[in-house]
Amino acid sequence: MRMVDLIHKKQENQTLTQEEIQYIVKGFTEGKIPDYQMAAFNMAVYFNGMNPKEVSALTMAMVESGDQIDLSAIKGIKVDKHSTGGVGDTTTLVLAPLVASCGVPVAKMSGRGLGHTGGTIDKLETIKGFQFELSQEDFIQQVNQHQVAVVGQTGDLTPADKKLYALRDVTSTVQSIPLIASSIMSKKIASGADAIVLDVKVGDGAFMKTIEMAEELATTMVEIGNHLGRKTVAVLSNMDQPLGFAIGNTLEVNEAVETLKGNGPEDLTQLCLSLGAQMLLSAQRVKSIQEGTDLLQEQIDSGAALKKFREFIEVQGGDASFIDEPERLGKAKYQIPYLAKSSGVVSHWVANLVGEAAMVLGAGRAVKEDQIDPVVGIVLKAKVGDSIQEGEPLAIIHSNREDISDCLARLDQAVQIADSAEELPLIYKTID
Amino acid sequence: MRMVDLIHKKQENQTLTQEEIQYIVKGFTEGKIPDYQMAAFNMAVYFNGMNPKEVSALTMAMVESGDQIDLSAIKGIKVDKHSTGGVGDTTTLVLAPLVASCGVPVAKMSGRGLGHTGGTIDKLETIKGFQFELSQEDFIQQVNQHQVAVVGQTGDLTPADKKLYALRDVTSTVQSIPLIASSIMSKKIASGADAIVLDVKVGDGAFMKTIEMAEELATTMVEIGNHLGRKTVAVLSNMDQPLGFAIGNTLEVNEAVETLKGNGPEDLTQLCLSLGAQMLLSAQRVKSIQEGTDLLQEQIDSGAALKKFREFIEVQGGDASFIDEPERLGKAKYQIPYLAKSSGVVSHWVANLVGEAAMVLGAGRAVKEDQIDPVVGIVLKAKVGDSIQEGEPLAIIHSNREDISDCLARLDQAVQIADSAEELPLIYKTID
Repeated sequence: MRMVDLIHKKQENQTLTQEEIQYIVKGFTEGKIPDYQMAAFNMAVYFNGMNPKEVSALTMAMVESGDQIDLSAIKGIKVDKHSTGGVGDTTTLVLAPLVASCGVPVAKMSGRGLGHTGGTIDKLETIKGFQFELSQEDFIQQVNQHQVAVVGQTGDLTPADKKLYALRDVTSTVQSIPLIASSIMSKKIASGADAIVLDVKVGDGAFMKTIEMAEELATTMVEIGNHLGRKTVAVLSNMDQPLGFAIGNTLEVNEAVETLKGNGPEDLTQLCLSLGAQMLLSAQRVKSIQEGTDLLQEQIDSGAALKKFREFIEVQGGDASFIDEPERLGKAKYQIPYLAKSSGVVSHWVANLVGEAAMVLGAGRAVKEDQIDPVVGIVLKAKVGDSIQEGEPLAIIHSNREDISDCLARLDQAVQIADSAEELPLIYKTID
Repeated sequence: MRMVDLIHKKQENQTLTQEEIQYIVKGFTEGKIPDYQMAAFNMAVYFNGMNPKEVSALTMAMVESGDQIDLSAIKGIKVDKHSTGGVGDTTTLVLAPLVASCGVPVAKMSGRGLGHTGGTIDKLETIKGFQFELSQEDFIQQVNQHQVAVVGQTGDLTPADKKLYALRDVTSTVQSIPLIASSIMSKKIASGADAIVLDVKVGDGAFMKTIEMAEELATTMVEIGNHLGRKTVAVLSNMDQPLGFAIGNTLEVNEAVETLKGNGPEDLTQLCLSLGAQMLLSAQRVKSIQEGTDLLQEQIDSGAALKKFREFIEVQGGDASFIDEPERLGKAKYQIPYLAKSSGVVSHWVANLVGEAAMVLGAGRAVKEDQIDPVVGIVLKAKVGDSIQEGEPLAIIHSNREDISDCLARLDQAVQIADSAEELPLIYKTID
């Protein structure tokens, strides 16, 4: 087998066999296939795509390139949730205890993040004492005993994907549906998921800008999951405006607490109930989405979800006092209101610009080496469809510096006030 | 400027500026743009193509990457001829003296060849004493005095093209019209041509298998020439069967002599007259193709063309006695007739298979390091459309080994004898 022939095959839009894809991934990971051939191959995939069999073979080849986490010692069906990334996305912090409180095991590996705010690990790290480095044994034991654990990524998972992503990043092949889909799915499968619930974000603040692209990505990932025996379902959700009100690390932790108390933003709450119901259904804990939604609502109303959150924080060594006293997580030096310049209805809150406005304050990382400032960020006071009067606050900016002109410039671009607003759907559709 | 953005631009089918293309070629040649980015870019070009301005800019950037031969000291318009390569293509050996005999300067740089037979330099090298390493000064002086000189490539011409071709070869991007066209044209322009006549071969034995592809390549090269102020014309000629009768190095030299004597194969003669007339027209030696053809025919009939050939060989130190005694160039140990297995009309003589049959005897190189055996090869005795009786020779195989089963197997595949044959046109069209 010669790589140049396999590039040619993909160029001619022929179907690659499983053996051929394994040869490519193995050769590339081991350094036997040079970067330039892989780059040419990726570009051919960008133009000609891959069919479900090919992309499943690619996913498994990447899974097999590294360690695979064995969660079989955890009782029950392990359902993992994955979001393709948006602005103000606090769902994992809500869902982990919420779903666990229903008796379904949540064994979550999370990462730090590049982007507008940190990843789940960055957010949990703002809690004093919280330990996210657990041994594999302790991790499994904790899930069996408390139904929930969130740890940092351990082991050398999908090294092929890491190497491939680094190459895609510098050769303009990040935006390829089969390459995105196999990258996401390989990490979930290597992490030991039996079933997967995907939150595929669509809109200005998401990787997928259109419903068509999001649907193609979602369908591809669901097909991969089905091919590889992992029940997978994808929910397409709106990311034109930020999710919830808070964008920033401690601000989002506190918003998660409010949501678990039943006082969260409507969109964040609704999305958590939808994704959570899918998780319960995939775990065979309930028989329908309606039953799942009702059960989750009960867990919130009864305080069981919040109780589970406290238990989870404490068992991982964290100081849970912030649940009752949010200010224990710290506070930025300045709280600066961002005022409406006219009266009307908020018609746009462009998510990626709001995200950038938070990032320049220090809420997120542009490059891996950047330090996150946990307490800074933005809390929206009005969302799309809300009426506002000139001079009223549209948002509160939490900053550790007084000069926030860079942040304000982005917010000025992000917001539009008009006579009326088109209603944004929260969830477009579910693909399974 | 970032290469990743330029790859993206091409991926999105946007037009690159001259500055952007210069940045790419310069960066790649100097090693500042890594192979993997160039490979991704090439693949994007493969899928999205380049417009005439882009491909002209690419050509000039490659010309400027290395030395450029200055032929301005040669009087008159310097017309270069280039063939895209076929089987049994002896046109340069005929055309150089033929056109020179009309008083038009022929300052030719030729290479060795990879393929079924050697390049022009390999063929001339079979002549005892022939020197093809001339100083730039002697080269120019010889052309001014004798109107013709053929030398090996000197200087570091188009290093960008050499580096790019090596990368294309291993990343399945050889077959891209803008990349092929700019590669050919950059070499011609760097070699100092004022005008260019292209022989674009079409068919089984050519790089371009269909008329559509050949036409696209020809049009692209003509556009480049026009953009860059080099009058360029392309002739699309048939390469379904070998050109002429001889395939092999000394065999083709002798066939060139026969053609200059007026006894050459009809197709080779006709093609030389057509290409030669285009060269005379481009050099403003004649006012029409008809006038050019008539003049060339006169030069053959009068013996002036052959005289010029003898003069050319002798002035470059060669022993010209082979012109009168062909066997002076040497002879293979065995002359083995290849007999027709049935009676009828030759309907196919698949050019690339005949070429391979000659190559396995030693007539050509599969890799650069291979040694050529100058005297081996194949001489066809019947061509497409000719009638043949079972047991009559279809060809004579000139071999230095007795076991030629590998050669015969290819000839068996190459030839077809039927009740009738479709007439093959020699020249499809001319593009200028």
